[in-house]
Amino acid sequence: MRIVTWDRAGVSVPAALVASDEGDRLVDLSGVVASTLELLTDEGAAANARAVIDAADPSGFPLREGERLLAPIRPRVLLCIGYNYRGHVVAGGEGQPDPEHPDVFVKTANTMIGPDDAVLLPPQSDDVDYEGEIGVVIGRTTHAVSAEDALAHIAGYTLVNDVSARDWQNRTSQWTLGKCFDGFAPIGPAIVTADEVEDPTHLLVEVIRDGKTTVSQSTSTLIFPFAEIVSYVSQSITLQPGDVIATGSPQKLPDALRDHRPLTDGESVRIRVEGIGELVTVFRASEI
Amino acid sequence: MRIVTWDRAGVSVPAALVASDEGDRLVDLSGVVASTLELLTDEGAAANARAVIDAADPSGFPLREGERLLAPIRPRVLLCIGYNYRGHVVAGGEGQPDPEHPDVFVKTANTMIGPDDAVLLPPQSDDVDYEGEIGVVIGRTTHAVSAEDALAHIAGYTLVNDVSARDWQNRTSQWTLGKCFDGFAPIGPAIVTADEVEDPTHLLVEVIRDGKTTVSQSTSTLIFPFAEIVSYVSQSITLQPGDVIATGSPQKLPDALRDHRPLTDGESVRIRVEGIGELVTVFRASEI
Repeated sequence: MRIVTWDRAGVSVPAALVASDEGDRLVDLSGVVASTLELLTDEGAAANARAVIDAADPSGFPLREGERLLAPIRPRVLLCIGYNYRGHVVAGGEGQPDPEHPDVFVKTANTMIGPDDAVLLPPQSDDVDYEGEIGVVIGRTTHAVSAEDALAHIAGYTLVNDVSARDWQNRTSQWTLGKCFDGFAPIGPAIVTADEVEDPTHLLVEVIRDGKTTVSQSTSTLIFPFAEIVSYVSQSITLQPGDVIATGSPQKLPDALRDHRPLTDGESVRIRVEGIGELVTVFRASEI
Repeated sequence: MRIVTWDRAGVSVPAALVASDEGDRLVDLSGVVASTLELLTDEGAAANARAVIDAADPSGFPLREGERLLAPIRPRVLLCIGYNYRGHVVAGGEGQPDPEHPDVFVKTANTMIGPDDAVLLPPQSDDVDYEGEIGVVIGRTTHAVSAEDALAHIAGYTLVNDVSARDWQNRTSQWTLGKCFDGFAPIGPAIVTADEVEDPTHLLVEVIRDGKTTVSQSTSTLIFPFAEIVSYVSQSITLQPGDVIATGSPQKLPDALRDHRPLTDGESVRIRVEGIGELVTVFRASEI
């Protein structure tokens, strides 16, 4: 199931995306569940939702295009992982050594926006950057689980753009303020339930900035795979259903690294992971 | 007004502390407001609450001792500031230079506990430490305010014990997991409204560990005073009413620094700031 939150004429409703020849369509699930969280935590509710989806004639549902989606979930805790993909080794060069432990930081509640919201470029920063990441969505209370058990605690997968103000991020030892400007965490569009993601260890993460591919790397190159991240974090933070961990950004491709330039008004960043979806974020200058 | 959340026979109610000869007493304000947040944001509600407190005979109210208080507020965002008090300069030594910007980190939702809750020492860490801090509580939406305007956005003051697992904190560049074990942010006991704190630039912060004073330093030695912190943070994060910023820990006294030892089962840490209150936290071994 591809779970979304649909802004249906101003009312936020739990919904699902279904494919049709004309593109994805939206099935309102507010008759079945009160929230998207229920679809992640209550197997009976999820089964009922699937029955509704399967029984209906998709052609009667509105097309996703033209409708507005909100963040599929409002995590109580949104965490991100620093350097977590082995870098591209350029000719004659060497990769960085693997870190011993995942480096974890927080995106605060003010950062979270939906997949159809633009990121406003804050006038306080001259260097806003993007990072395309897979977010694991927790399905049950998770405390000090082993890596073996951790996968069963992941209810689904979504996409997160970990937006950063690099100038602020690098001012101090802790990255918090650079990572936590308002709207710096677009999430979605959907949570794809774990049963529909066949092999999370071989997902190609692609990022396209204004038509040019700047990231293309598989989760097979993760230093800490999803299960290890969940296990490690859960030794400290008891995770709750709906919490999200963005699992780190692959290295940018050599061209993109060399030509680093801050995001500007009107640019768009497309994060694409086959089987999980596409998160397209437009960046806009703030009106001051 | 000293605002608390009272666990009144299992029901969480907004309340106030009032002094009496026998010690502080509790006034239930659930007839006046639905939440402690209302007392911080709604001047009319706060005036009504004051009228209730003033009209009543304190001797009829239950003593605070023997009653259980919960965290006075549940911040949507709880931030802390790193090194923010000028260090004690020991004989012949030099102080650290002042940092250029406040170093900000996050305590996640799972860390917040009430003033009467014990901190469970996690078996995952061998080095749990305490820091006594004044928390500023935000009273209205705060975005990109100047330091001059920032004080008007502080509705009150409370105490926060910024508990850390030093071993985890120092494993990686970001301190997150060391700061965010479950229960690592006792808050309270009360929020003292800003009108009752005469001079926030001259508050003596004292910390007593098992009867011995380990911290004694005034807010006059803050590198970034409260108004500057709120102003700086608000350039990035739009703060909302009820959000809390713990403003940093003074340096420990030379004896305490020299004799650093991890907290152990049964120890207590008392944070005391005249006019703001006392937050006493007991540390307990976890049952594994």
